[in-house]
Amino acid sequence: MTTPAAALVSPEDRFLIEDLFARYNRAIDSNDRREEFVSLYTPDGVWVSPMEGTITGREALSAWYDDYFSRSDLPYHGGQHRVTNVIIESATEDRIESWCTWIFVASLEGPRVIVMGKYIDTIVKQDGRWMFEKRVIEINANSVEEV
Amino acid sequence: MTTPAAALVSPEDRFLIEDLFARYNRAIDSNDRREEFVSLYTPDGVWVSPMEGTITGREALSAWYDDYFSRSDLPYHGGQHRVTNVIIESATEDRIESWCTWIFVASLEGPRVIVMGKYIDTIVKQDGRWMFEKRVIEINANSVEEV
Amino acid sequence: MTTPAAALVSPEDRFLIEDLFARYNRAIDSNDRREEFVSLYTPDGVWVSPMEGTITGREALSAWYDDYFSRSDLPYHGGQHRVTNVIIESATEDRIESWCTWIFVASLEGPRVIVMGKYIDTIVKQDGRWMFEKRVIEINANSVEEV
Repeated sequence: MTTPAAALVSPEDRFLIEDLFARYNRAIDSNDRREEFVSLYTPDGVWVSPMEGTITGREALSAWYDDYFSRSDLPYHGGQHRVTNVIIESATEDRIESWCTWIFVASLEGPRVIVMGKYIDTIVKQDGRWMFEKRVIEINANSVEEV
Repeated sequence: MTTPAAALVSPEDRFLIEDLFARYNRAIDSNDRREEFVSLYTPDGVWVSPMEGTITGREALSAWYDDYFSRSDLPYHGGQHRVTNVIIESATEDRIESWCTWIFVASLEGPRVIVMGKYIDTIVKQDGRWMFEKRVIEINANSVEEV
Repeated sequence: MTTPAAALVSPEDRFLIEDLFARYNRAIDSNDRREEFVSLYTPDGVWVSPMEGTITGREALSAWYDDYFSRSDLPYHGGQHRVTNVIIESATEDRIESWCTWIFVASLEGPRVIVMGKYIDTIVKQDGRWMFEKRVIEINANSVEEV
């Protein structure tokens, strides 16, 4: 059995990756963190959602964030994205491919777990900071009715 | 974009912070860990709960713990507090301000997620150990009926 | 108050332990990772489940894995095991005793939390890799009807 790729990431970098994941979750569960949300991606970062489509680049991500929070009937606002089971698939000094699982716990009519899935991420270090080059969302169950 | 404050905490210290969070959760979800629960706070540590009020100092925390577990009708006993999305807001060598999200999963009539919220923490290093100087609880959803 | 045992584990080793936990969860929530699942145990590793019994050694674990996924009526397939509150109880350079809490979120007829409990683990380093020498499962609540 080969050494897990996790061994290739320094603890310092690993905690910065966890910080990236936490800031993503906080920003997407708030409605007033557009700038921080956008800053978590590389300038040409890509976000691929089965529900929201493919968004490319910070300008488009910024517009999407506003649009997302303008839809006041969404049950997602104010809830909690929660990530666990992060597995580093491959790693160099400035590029990590990772896999993890997430659930979303809604506070509206909740608490209740209403969506769950996986993130397939490419995370790169640019200008001393880790950012999403690409985040692909997979959804495994969703109890939300279409709105 | 500035460097995340997470970079200011050594991995060794960060894991001790996670240990503090885990021990808090285990102690508050057991009924026989009063001493450990109290030891997680500084001598004048403050715990602020929307449900339980403000408790200050180890003696008061100790009395609260006993009282809490004497209320046998509470649905909280034997469940799981679960923390994620820890964000370090600021950090020096011996003081950290952090933000995180939590859910509580009850085992009674469960499993079921019945409360969710945030912790706003001030954590300090005293005598070589990290302890809560202050933990403020925010609740975002609660499906528990008043008891 | 003594130093937490967590201080005895290097951050590098601690992240490899977390990798072990994540790979266990991914393997037991997939149906095509038998080899990886088995490789997470020492050759004579023991897995003790209140539902599945005691399985000892890689050959028996391998057979169990196939049997588990052949039972197509189980609500566990495709869901998420999620671990948190890891507490290191004792640690030497190549042996760790730990305690943690877990929930299982089913995707079938879900998302829904259907089982919760604890893992009591003995984890050892052999040939440069951390593996389960023994994992004992405790279940605290289970809403699954017997199948």
